[in-house]
Amino acid sequence: MKHSLLAAAIALPLACLAQKSAPENLVQYAHPLVGTAKMGHTYPGASVPFGAVQLSPDTDTISYEQNGKYNPDIYSYCAGYQYKDPTIVGFSHTHFSGTGHSDLGDFLVMPTTGPLQLNPGTADKPLGGYRSAYSHQTEVAEPAYYKVRLADNNILAELTATTRVGVHQYTFPKADESHIILDLMAGIYNYPGKNTWTFVRVENDSLVTGYRQTNGWGRTRVVYFALSFSKPFKTYGSRNYDQKQPYRGFWGRFDQNHNWPDLAGHQLRMHFDFGATQAGQQVKLKMALSPVSMAGALANLRAEAPGWNFADYKQKGQAQWQQELSKIAITSPKRVDKENFYTAMYHAFTGVTTYQDTDGQYRGLDQNNHLAKDFTNYTTFSLWDTYRALHPLYNLVQPKRNADMTQSMLMHFDQSAEHMLPVWSHYANENWCMIGYHSVPVVCDAIVLGNAPFDQNKALDACVTTARQRWYDGLGLYMDKGYVPEDKSGA
Amino acid sequence: MKHSLLAAAIALPLACLAQKSAPENLVQYAHPLVGTAKMGHTYPGASVPFGAVQLSPDTDTISYEQNGKYNPDIYSYCAGYQYKDPTIVGFSHTHFSGTGHSDLGDFLVMPTTGPLQLNPGTADKPLGGYRSAYSHQTEVAEPAYYKVRLADNNILAELTATTRVGVHQYTFPKADESHIILDLMAGIYNYPGKNTWTFVRVENDSLVTGYRQTNGWGRTRVVYFALSFSKPFKTYGSRNYDQKQPYRGFWGRFDQNHNWPDLAGHQLRMHFDFGATQAGQQVKLKMALSPVSMAGALANLRAEAPGWNFADYKQKGQAQWQQELSKIAITSPKRVDKENFYTAMYHAFTGVTTYQDTDGQYRGLDQNNHLAKDFTNYTTFSLWDTYRALHPLYNLVQPKRNADMTQSMLMHFDQSAEHMLPVWSHYANENWCMIGYHSVPVVCDAIVLGNAPFDQNKALDACVTTARQRWYDGLGLYMDKGYVPEDKSGA
Repeated sequence: MKHSLLAAAIALPLACLAQKSAPENLVQYAHPLVGTAKMGHTYPGASVPFGAVQLSPDTDTISYEQNGKYNPDIYSYCAGYQYKDPTIVGFSHTHFSGTGHSDLGDFLVMPTTGPLQLNPGTADKPLGGYRSAYSHQTEVAEPAYYKVRLADNNILAELTATTRVGVHQYTFPKADESHIILDLMAGIYNYPGKNTWTFVRVENDSLVTGYRQTNGWGRTRVVYFALSFSKPFKTYGSRNYDQKQPYRGFWGRFDQNHNWPDLAGHQLRMHFDFGATQAGQQVKLKMALSPVSMAGALANLRAEAPGWNFADYKQKGQAQWQQELSKIAITSPKRVDKENFYTAMYHAFTGVTTYQDTDGQYRGLDQNNHLAKDFTNYTTFSLWDTYRALHPLYNLVQPKRNADMTQSMLMHFDQSAEHMLPVWSHYANENWCMIGYHSVPVVCDAIVLGNAPFDQNKALDACVTTARQRWYDGLGLYMDKGYVPEDKSGA
Repeated sequence: MKHSLLAAAIALPLACLAQKSAPENLVQYAHPLVGTAKMGHTYPGASVPFGAVQLSPDTDTISYEQNGKYNPDIYSYCAGYQYKDPTIVGFSHTHFSGTGHSDLGDFLVMPTTGPLQLNPGTADKPLGGYRSAYSHQTEVAEPAYYKVRLADNNILAELTATTRVGVHQYTFPKADESHIILDLMAGIYNYPGKNTWTFVRVENDSLVTGYRQTNGWGRTRVVYFALSFSKPFKTYGSRNYDQKQPYRGFWGRFDQNHNWPDLAGHQLRMHFDFGATQAGQQVKLKMALSPVSMAGALANLRAEAPGWNFADYKQKGQAQWQQELSKIAITSPKRVDKENFYTAMYHAFTGVTTYQDTDGQYRGLDQNNHLAKDFTNYTTFSLWDTYRALHPLYNLVQPKRNADMTQSMLMHFDQSAEHMLPVWSHYANENWCMIGYHSVPVVCDAIVLGNAPFDQNKALDACVTTARQRWYDGLGLYMDKGYVPEDKSGA
């Protein structure tokens, strides 16, 4: 009986798809802005289903630390955006959706006009920095598309994405000077010293590569990028905000602030200058990410985003959303029901993210590069949150992806120095947030449902080994007593 | 006439080799200790010709900085060892030979007995730390072999190497406790903050992997390791000497100091504990290095050093030296002439070092990994010092290697954001030490001698492009005036 029920549920989306010849546009019902107020911790920006890039505005980039202490305001910025905020600092490429702790916010980009400002400025005085005021009236947030007018400089910003590439389109007003800022210091849950290293190469007048390595929630996290401009920049430059260090080497003989193509440090900001613009002139950017290398990011860029047709990327991104949202059809006379349902479904498909290059290579938990054979490697496993409903849902409507996610978790186990399945993992890191072994029900569920194209005995071993790690947060007590006393583990 | 002269010179070593049926042992004449006093800046430890590993004692690991200022004593420690010093801090795996500035000193290992000491101690009070007094009377330094008795604990230390693996053999006295210290904070030309990141995994009870990433003379330098023990350690541990940081993540829930297999930070020291030892009991270590990854280091370990026969590694290392030193035979009634000659030749073959894994992969100047096709990739190019005599000598007696070095320089050019051949390069970094374009005569010399198995037109382009970089230290003036005025460039 259980089996036939499950079979019916899996068949449901296919049946619904088959019902109509001209399918209803479901993308219109999904609203990325839902959850961006207060503690919803969603981001309004552009991503494709399960995309590695979440290109989204950050309305503040405050520090985790204030006067040497935890800054409680930081919690508002888990996804970088707070609906009530009056300014946008810039658009960064990685965001968690709906988490209760944070990291990411890599590679913040901001277009500006007028004299160069490399300081982000403050929310109350946006004209004092590169950030800008904006109005929600100019803001459009759809799946795989985000638009806003940056009021300070009257620049129209539009964002879309492929799986691994963030695509920007900036429409400038008439201006004497225009710039694109690339802030490698910015980040979510930032603190002094979070950047363990950043590296940038200006390959030519329209291509930049580099990486950002951080010590945050992910202890040893690296993201590589390749950034392509639709228009050659005329000049460029950087500032290094590192603290003075005792050893300086021999790089000080060069002026590294102006048109110097080879940069490294802890705290870098860059600017790319395009001179005077006419009203309506556009600069487009494509930033590809990789977990493996700059060469990997460049290969991702070339594979996924060879051209410069912004509308085409947007259309393809929304077509992906249409396809994924179509997996469940609901009928209701009320539009709000569809909005609630498809917005929730939209968010359900942004929780777990792709974590490999187009050639299958990814960074493993052991910090070696690996090749994902016969599966797509995923990351962002908030298992304490997702084992009950999200993975069971994926098993029904995203069976291939859920099988690959399970496979990714088993690879995590193989690469784990602690010999554990993921607890809360992201970007080749176990961040050890929360308790228990909630990946075990995900693995078991996949096996029970027959959606487990991997060695099931090996998977069982991984589950049992994980569950028997006595040192992990009360597991020894649980094994001995059948429960964990509240005064021994309060989580 | 010039050509026939060169031909004679190249033929010389072969002719000399053919003279004898039982070749003279030339290894006996080469003395690695020569140059270790005052400012010779050589190291006495073990390496094979052009080896990637230079496993050698460091007699002090003082900081580049003292009270916020340059510490002039640092210059004595370019190669880690000063003959006059009374103590040895430990044995690290990478050393320059004969340079006038420095870096390296990666992965310092020290055996100890008695209560654990993780502090290196000071030269005047060696008993206060893990370092040890020693006497030159117990010291033997031969090509590919180094031996010393560590007086504080009466441990006999012996070192040898393959191209990519340092092999240690420690013979312990009877003791209640014995330890191997692995200090990832130690280094040459060290300063607070030099370690941008270090990472360690204890894979099992006798295998450890990791990496050290530094910002020194090489601005973005990473060395990966795999360390294998002949005997399982009973317990192990670490201390993290990082400054307290505002953000701590969720790792604080674990006791990372004791038997915790997954470590990362800026300032780590580790210890591996072997319990009580009997007199004469040995612990052997093999540490493989890689420029690419921990997996690469492990593959190098398995390829070059599968067994535990120390004498065999020593014999093979010395056989390599015999082969290389045999390339020129001299006759003299005076032993000292042979000692001078073969010691100089020994040092000549430690200047440039192998920089790729056994599978041909290496880290390029662009910080991507590359595959060396049809050549071996080399690093450590002190070209202002080596273009006049060392590379011309290599062209004669190491033609394959010199061709590969030239190829390596051309790859550096391809990977250079500044579009320059190397000035002074090491470990995938241009360190910009000194002036001019001294790789150009090396490339040209290889072509003129017909020892240039690469695209010669492309090589010419690289030379011309390098020579025309007007921004580089007086080159514009040189192009305009035919000379560089002393008051414009004093180097």
